[in-house]
Amino acid sequence: MAGHSHLFIPGPTNIPDEVRRAMNLPMEDMRAWSFPELTLPIFSDLKSVFRNETGRVFIYPSSGTGAWEAAMTNVLSPGDRVLMSRFGQFSHLWVDMAERLGFDVDVIDCEWGTGVPVELYAERLMADREHRIKAVFVTQNETATGVTSDVAAVRRALDAARHPALLFVDGVSSIGSIDFRQEEWGVDCAVSGSQKGFMLPAGLGFLSVSAKALEAARTARHMRCYFSFEDMIRTNDTGYFPYTPPTQLLRGLRVALDLIAEEGLDNIHARHHRLAEGVRRAVSGWGLKLCAKEPKWHSDTVSAIVLPEGIDGAQVVRHGLVRYNTAFGAGLAKVAGKVFRIGHLGSLDEVMVCSALSAAEMTMLDCGVKLKPGSGVGAAVDFFRNQQSLAKAA
Amino acid sequence: MAGHSHLFIPGPTNIPDEVRRAMNLPMEDMRAWSFPELTLPIFSDLKSVFRNETGRVFIYPSSGTGAWEAAMTNVLSPGDRVLMSRFGQFSHLWVDMAERLGFDVDVIDCEWGTGVPVELYAERLMADREHRIKAVFVTQNETATGVTSDVAAVRRALDAARHPALLFVDGVSSIGSIDFRQEEWGVDCAVSGSQKGFMLPAGLGFLSVSAKALEAARTARHMRCYFSFEDMIRTNDTGYFPYTPPTQLLRGLRVALDLIAEEGLDNIHARHHRLAEGVRRAVSGWGLKLCAKEPKWHSDTVSAIVLPEGIDGAQVVRHGLVRYNTAFGAGLAKVAGKVFRIGHLGSLDEVMVCSALSAAEMTMLDCGVKLKPGSGVGAAVDFFRNQQSLAKAA
Amino acid sequence: MAGHSHLFIPGPTNIPDEVRRAMNLPMEDMRAWSFPELTLPIFSDLKSVFRNETGRVFIYPSSGTGAWEAAMTNVLSPGDRVLMSRFGQFSHLWVDMAERLGFDVDVIDCEWGTGVPVELYAERLMADREHRIKAVFVTQNETATGVTSDVAAVRRALDAARHPALLFVDGVSSIGSIDFRQEEWGVDCAVSGSQKGFMLPAGLGFLSVSAKALEAARTARHMRCYFSFEDMIRTNDTGYFPYTPPTQLLRGLRVALDLIAEEGLDNIHARHHRLAEGVRRAVSGWGLKLCAKEPKWHSDTVSAIVLPEGIDGAQVVRHGLVRYNTAFGAGLAKVAGKVFRIGHLGSLDEVMVCSALSAAEMTMLDCGVKLKPGSGVGAAVDFFRNQQSLAKAA
Amino acid sequence: MAGHSHLFIPGPTNIPDEVRRAMNLPMEDMRAWSFPELTLPIFSDLKSVFRNETGRVFIYPSSGTGAWEAAMTNVLSPGDRVLMSRFGQFSHLWVDMAERLGFDVDVIDCEWGTGVPVELYAERLMADREHRIKAVFVTQNETATGVTSDVAAVRRALDAARHPALLFVDGVSSIGSIDFRQEEWGVDCAVSGSQKGFMLPAGLGFLSVSAKALEAARTARHMRCYFSFEDMIRTNDTGYFPYTPPTQLLRGLRVALDLIAEEGLDNIHARHHRLAEGVRRAVSGWGLKLCAKEPKWHSDTVSAIVLPEGIDGAQVVRHGLVRYNTAFGAGLAKVAGKVFRIGHLGSLDEVMVCSALSAAEMTMLDCGVKLKPGSGVGAAVDFFRNQQSLAKAA
Repeated sequence: MAGHSHLFIPGPTNIPDEVRRAMNLPMEDMRAWSFPELTLPIFSDLKSVFRNETGRVFIYPSSGTGAWEAAMTNVLSPGDRVLMSRFGQFSHLWVDMAERLGFDVDVIDCEWGTGVPVELYAERLMADREHRIKAVFVTQNETATGVTSDVAAVRRALDAARHPALLFVDGVSSIGSIDFRQEEWGVDCAVSGSQKGFMLPAGLGFLSVSAKALEAARTARHMRCYFSFEDMIRTNDTGYFPYTPPTQLLRGLRVALDLIAEEGLDNIHARHHRLAEGVRRAVSGWGLKLCAKEPKWHSDTVSAIVLPEGIDGAQVVRHGLVRYNTAFGAGLAKVAGKVFRIGHLGSLDEVMVCSALSAAEMTMLDCGVKLKPGSGVGAAVDFFRNQQSLAKAA
Repeated sequence: MAGHSHLFIPGPTNIPDEVRRAMNLPMEDMRAWSFPELTLPIFSDLKSVFRNETGRVFIYPSSGTGAWEAAMTNVLSPGDRVLMSRFGQFSHLWVDMAERLGFDVDVIDCEWGTGVPVELYAERLMADREHRIKAVFVTQNETATGVTSDVAAVRRALDAARHPALLFVDGVSSIGSIDFRQEEWGVDCAVSGSQKGFMLPAGLGFLSVSAKALEAARTARHMRCYFSFEDMIRTNDTGYFPYTPPTQLLRGLRVALDLIAEEGLDNIHARHHRLAEGVRRAVSGWGLKLCAKEPKWHSDTVSAIVLPEGIDGAQVVRHGLVRYNTAFGAGLAKVAGKVFRIGHLGSLDEVMVCSALSAAEMTMLDCGVKLKPGSGVGAAVDFFRNQQSLAKAA
Repeated sequence: MAGHSHLFIPGPTNIPDEVRRAMNLPMEDMRAWSFPELTLPIFSDLKSVFRNETGRVFIYPSSGTGAWEAAMTNVLSPGDRVLMSRFGQFSHLWVDMAERLGFDVDVIDCEWGTGVPVELYAERLMADREHRIKAVFVTQNETATGVTSDVAAVRRALDAARHPALLFVDGVSSIGSIDFRQEEWGVDCAVSGSQKGFMLPAGLGFLSVSAKALEAARTARHMRCYFSFEDMIRTNDTGYFPYTPPTQLLRGLRVALDLIAEEGLDNIHARHHRLAEGVRRAVSGWGLKLCAKEPKWHSDTVSAIVLPEGIDGAQVVRHGLVRYNTAFGAGLAKVAGKVFRIGHLGSLDEVMVCSALSAAEMTMLDCGVKLKPGSGVGAAVDFFRNQQSLAKAA
Repeated sequence: MAGHSHLFIPGPTNIPDEVRRAMNLPMEDMRAWSFPELTLPIFSDLKSVFRNETGRVFIYPSSGTGAWEAAMTNVLSPGDRVLMSRFGQFSHLWVDMAERLGFDVDVIDCEWGTGVPVELYAERLMADREHRIKAVFVTQNETATGVTSDVAAVRRALDAARHPALLFVDGVSSIGSIDFRQEEWGVDCAVSGSQKGFMLPAGLGFLSVSAKALEAARTARHMRCYFSFEDMIRTNDTGYFPYTPPTQLLRGLRVALDLIAEEGLDNIHARHHRLAEGVRRAVSGWGLKLCAKEPKWHSDTVSAIVLPEGIDGAQVVRHGLVRYNTAFGAGLAKVAGKVFRIGHLGSLDEVMVCSALSAAEMTMLDCGVKLKPGSGVGAAVDFFRNQQSLAKAA
């Protein structure tokens, strides 16, 4: 098929060419005396992306799901009570994992299209005088519905209740793209993965933990070995790993962290907001609605767009790929067939967003959606071009 | 800079990922006994792209300009009279080369935005009873103005005049993208390069010659060595080269020829026409005009777009690159500052064209062009989506 | 540093260029309708490498260690009695994992340089009339000492005792390189990883299981989620994964499996034996000894070479890397400082082995080992050149 | 075929991984305003490798042969008398080109295995009172026989005769590897190519010229266009090229020049001498002789090894490639079948040389050469390990 493929799923994201090049290399000895020259700065720089100052970060050869399991099995014990909420496929899977790993899960079901119910969390925490709740879980960005929740507000609720529960955040599709402040917000376990904001292939799970979580891990009694903190800490401290790490991905991560530092986290967040806003203007231009119920839930990394009645979202996604070589995200679970998703995170710019919107227009038109050609991409063009004065470019 | 770069110059073009991968390899021995297993099929398949059946093709480690020189110095002798026309920077450079290489050049200057003046050629040929004109030159696609000329018509003019002159065609930015039929049209020397329709990096000059040109070369008296047919023929016949060839590019060429065969030349030409038409609809949507004066001159590989008075084309091109990471072609020579060019050839699809048009809209808006956001890309979206029924995609 | 790096550790191994190229690609949608076209044949072909006919194979985004954990937590329950043996760092780590995961481990400690004590296993199994032993563990290739154990003999011992225990094999540094026959030998869980005989970067853990193990997994009660068979089975059956798989590695695996099929497993095993024998001839030529106590323990994938008294193995390994850009394996744990290891598995040929031996000679000479220059590599040259008649090459 | 390929021809040479990675990239706009940021430092750094201070360097999209033609056609005029010598296939080809390009060639034929006859040159120059000789040609390194000539001595001969002739040097297989000092030795045209000491794929011809040669070019009357200095100078001065340059190779050249600067030219020359000496020790160890007649002719970049009577060199080269995946250079022209050549230039280290020697031993043994296994590679090991004290490595 002529032309390059167009990838607009909410992860894996597009890999910067510098990262791609860096991973195109022969294998190396992960026990070499010089290996820590690679790894130690990576640990340090990765912590910075989480804005974690006093804790540490773990890099697992796994998906983000593995990092979820690492967080839970190292820091909590079977039977521990945890407070969770469910409003999309990924918050659902996290709840499912917690249940299967033997926790006593207090789950609050919310409407899909909304996010973490901070007020209900606050109530539960206030009511929990005996501090039976050991951990509170927040899905910062629900990838299935394009909903972002307010992590800082949950911290405030914990503080208001003077509750000692640990704060767990799923930041798989947010960290590195949307504002996240582990230290400031008192997040104890923050989970992410390589294939989203970190602009790498899948294969690394990141877990950034607070000093408090490390302390908690000393007495947690879950059985684990592969994901065990202790082996990691012992070997990581000198720059090594307890088993063979994916050196190719580490070389890519080195470059990705350099790119992140070069652009600057604040600039990256601003860029994601700008690009997301362009997508939202396009959705309005088409006369369609987002799955996210209110602006406060709008995600800057992924938009789930509700299709008109009678249009099959699965066919939209399939047609986009078959006809226009463009990958969009399908609706999952409760919203299967009803939405399609545009991922707009990672290594992305205005022109790429416009190509996604153009492909979406052609695809929707072919699938029977009534919309004016150019109404979406034109709105984005209009928004993007106003973002800066020409003076800068001169 | 986040996101990938966007390349819409009329060459070098975007390299398909398969080709890129194929060139990412260690060096090899170009005198190995097995080397002809690579090269002999390449010669044969490359000839097919030129639709050259009875002649042969040369692959020079050079740019397309080198292949021009090879054509002239092997087939003609200093002092030979040649008929040429000039209506853009590249036809101009070809005339310049002919003059510097000592030919007696009869050049017809035409308005930029038009192409080869077939009627004037016909007159000149009719008038040349003594057959002093040894060769007639046609720039099939003038890259500077986005003008395609009618090669078949020049053949008809030659035939009508029963003139034995050789027919030289510059197909650098057309062959492999726009219909070209060496055998049918009786083209004696057809020149191209790796970095356009062949979807490779620059570095290879292609020269496809007829049996008649090979015969003429036996008696031509130009001094040459690097580009000499005889050394090439002697070594190529067994699959080798007279000097070290760029094996990396040959490996890429192998894959590019496979991709061309897989899509099919007719389909490739149809795709280029469709994509070019989308660009032309966008230009109309913007209320702008092409440099090409009439539809018959429209090029399916590059569009030169005339900017409104007061807008500096050089700034448009620069701003596109600096602000939107998008490379357009600048106006050259007579049209410098007045036009900017969108290359739409090689490995390209509808979505990429839409990204070019979106980038062009944002860039022009920023530079002060008055146009309705979405008016161009929307017209293209509307055109592209109508190109096929949904049934196909099911 | 001029020249390419020389990698002779027992994994990660050298990646074939075809595999390297295949992994140099943009990201793709792991939920695309066409994704199973990639994955389903991979599952099938991977099973063939294990010579597993009636079971199934799991591909985890993890190291081989993760596949160990997957095997134990899916098929066994906490408190289950398992029979293990320990004679090197990797068999030690496996025992350690079993203990940490809550099994009742009956571990037999053997001298390092020997392997699985089949006779003792046979005694234990005979004595276990009540079949309290639920699983018997065999490290087919102990990477730390270069010792290969006899898996088939353990199967015979199980059969002789009519014992129903499951048979677990660590084949991380053997499968794909040394003869392994899951079906014939009745192996229930066979563990491997991408970075050894499979010639890929680290990042994939392979677990090939028998029908019997799948049946056992239905009632096993270990807590697990990331490594859970059930999620994998449900999604793998249609060609997908329960979480984002490393598509880049899967693309590489596709090519690696093609290369394995092309060479043929029997030929691959013969090549590994031939190359290993060349290394052993070199060790004799140097007047040194292997860590493996007897020829029956000789490993065809890695040789641990005992250094003379007074020579520091750590310095040998470091000097090899610093001065000759050549990575050897260091001695680990009990044999730290006493041996150095040459990995000779994966994508390797005679010339590469000779380069390893030459580097080893220079390194050892520099470090004070008394040996005749050329005595080792010459022995290998002599051995390799006799391996085939010249007739073949004509 | 398992294992990587082994390339020991005298060019193309092995590409450093950093260079390979740098060339694995999308295409770019060679007319971008930022393009000179790439090219201008390249011109400057490339000049440094030639140790050319007051002249300039040209980069042609061509092989080294193209740079030969560029040198002759820009600086000399048809009919000019030139003094050349011929003692191998490449000096022969240069003479052939000079004749075909219409010069009055005074060629001195020397025995193959010797080099430029400085005394005879001195005589000719002394005798040429009228300064009819316009240029003197020196093949610094004759790749076919492994012979290095004394450029400085030719300069001394010119000076002694107070002769104003220009000095042309073919440094294709020497510059960047063997000491070369354009300014100090008063070389007017020095020719090289990308695929030898510059560690790149073939595709770029380098021509480094003195101010005197540039001056001569103003009045030279050869017809040329592709290779014309004037177009190059005009465009290069601002960082551009007269036609599309191979940007991929320029990106690789950037990295290659960085690697050369990092190692340092003097260190590179010393390394080439050390590695070549190791090869020569091996040849002695085998009881064989070099094609080069005396030590003063020994080349540090390639060794042509004379095979015993009755052994067919072509079969040796073919067998090396077929059986051991190792490419050696065949004997060419007068020495065809009598020698085989080991290229030892570019990105190379001791271990790679040992692998070449091991492969050569196995190949020669298989082909019937009587030699003691290990006698060659052992001699090299012994030589290399003595090259430095252990202290350095600690």
